[in-house]
Amino acid sequence: MRNIKLTIEYDGSSYHGWQMQKNAISVQEVISGAILKLTGEQVILEGAGRTDRGVHAYGQVASFKTDSAIPGDKFSVALNRFLPDDICIVASEDVDPGFHARFSAKGKHYRYLIINRRQRSPIWDKRAWHVRDALNIPAMEEAALIFLGRHNFEAFCAAGHHIKTFERTITRSEWTQNGDILQFDTMGDGYLYNMVRIMVGAMVDIGRGRFTPDVIARAIETGNRNDIGMTAPAQGLYLMEVFY
Amino acid sequence: MRNIKLTIEYDGSSYHGWQMQKNAISVQEVISGAILKLTGEQVILEGAGRTDRGVHAYGQVASFKTDSAIPGDKFSVALNRFLPDDICIVASEDVDPGFHARFSAKGKHYRYLIINRRQRSPIWDKRAWHVRDALNIPAMEEAALIFLGRHNFEAFCAAGHHIKTFERTITRSEWTQNGDILQFDTMGDGYLYNMVRIMVGAMVDIGRGRFTPDVIARAIETGNRNDIGMTAPAQGLYLMEVFY
Repeated sequence: MRNIKLTIEYDGSSYHGWQMQKNAISVQEVISGAILKLTGEQVILEGAGRTDRGVHAYGQVASFKTDSAIPGDKFSVALNRFLPDDICIVASEDVDPGFHARFSAKGKHYRYLIINRRQRSPIWDKRAWHVRDALNIPAMEEAALIFLGRHNFEAFCAAGHHIKTFERTITRSEWTQNGDILQFDTMGDGYLYNMVRIMVGAMVDIGRGRFTPDVIARAIETGNRNDIGMTAPAQGLYLMEVFY
Repeated sequence: MRNIKLTIEYDGSSYHGWQMQKNAISVQEVISGAILKLTGEQVILEGAGRTDRGVHAYGQVASFKTDSAIPGDKFSVALNRFLPDDICIVASEDVDPGFHARFSAKGKHYRYLIINRRQRSPIWDKRAWHVRDALNIPAMEEAALIFLGRHNFEAFCAAGHHIKTFERTITRSEWTQNGDILQFDTMGDGYLYNMVRIMVGAMVDIGRGRFTPDVIARAIETGNRNDIGMTAPAQGLYLMEVFY
């Protein structure tokens, strides 16, 4: 049996996240449906990360086993014929039988976009978080640096998730500004549930002057979710790339 | 009677352009409807430029006369309560009785976005033109420079429009590249019908190697629409700003 890796871009606005669920449409379900139409097979499509409702992806990765004879690099074009405008397989290839989109992943790159101005923006409505308040960007940049390195990120994980370890290594954590668009890029070996959105929420609270940057270091020490603030909304988050 | 100037951002994806028409929804109609709800007045809302179906705006300008007592700068917030997510009044103010959004305009800034890669992009689907072919960017940059200055742009005007003069002065015409996004910015004292989209279409044909940049100079000389190629699609075009 062959093992196929897909790289997927989607606008998450119309989906209840990546993962299949009852009574709601998911990206995983739509792509599984396209694979069924193309190959006649009901496959198990494993995604690298379970993006939430409204989160976007430039480089989600998924893998599935198949008996189909379609060449690995042709799956993308073949599947795109069965996919809507807001989902596209940007690349496909044969991979080793041991490859698993989620368990083989060595790291991820996420981006978060904020539109920082008084009025809401129709053009960025579903693709960035609208923050009205003036933000202290140097304080947010200072806070971003504290995330770098290997830390216990329990305080940056949404409740109700039982996992083995909250230790993660962050290798990139930086803000760039382009007019009224603020962009946060982070790379690391893995992210806990809602971790990027909680990181961004804390940094925006720091930018607003509600907290000082040392709150980040304290939350890393205590592991207490209550030591930091809100979760940034889904529509500003993009899964950019998964590293293997 | 007072004269109010509105600055408007919209995602044009769901509208049949700016201008009101029978049997199709327009941005002008939706905003006029909001003004009616707010003031009880059926006003004539004059727009600076008639953006086509699918074209976006960060800075469309419109003006209207009113007897309302609402302070000029409060119209934006008040009207936004009656507007959908894809239209927003970003600023409003009282202006001289002689001000007219269209006739008083001294210049405009348009932007055109291209996503240049093999696969279509779900995230940029309705906000950029997807060009698959490899493009010769230096040739497109060379072509862009030819537009600068005062020229007869009859060859860059869609047919069927009877106007006094085809002479226009272009003061900015440049490409910038950011990853697989190509951005064309142009400023000038005015633009003919479909002019920016025809300029971009010609430059992309040059980037593809179908024409050489001197085709632009020849089309300016002959004034013949047939000397150049296609019209770039609407969804890549943004009206950025109107100058007064």
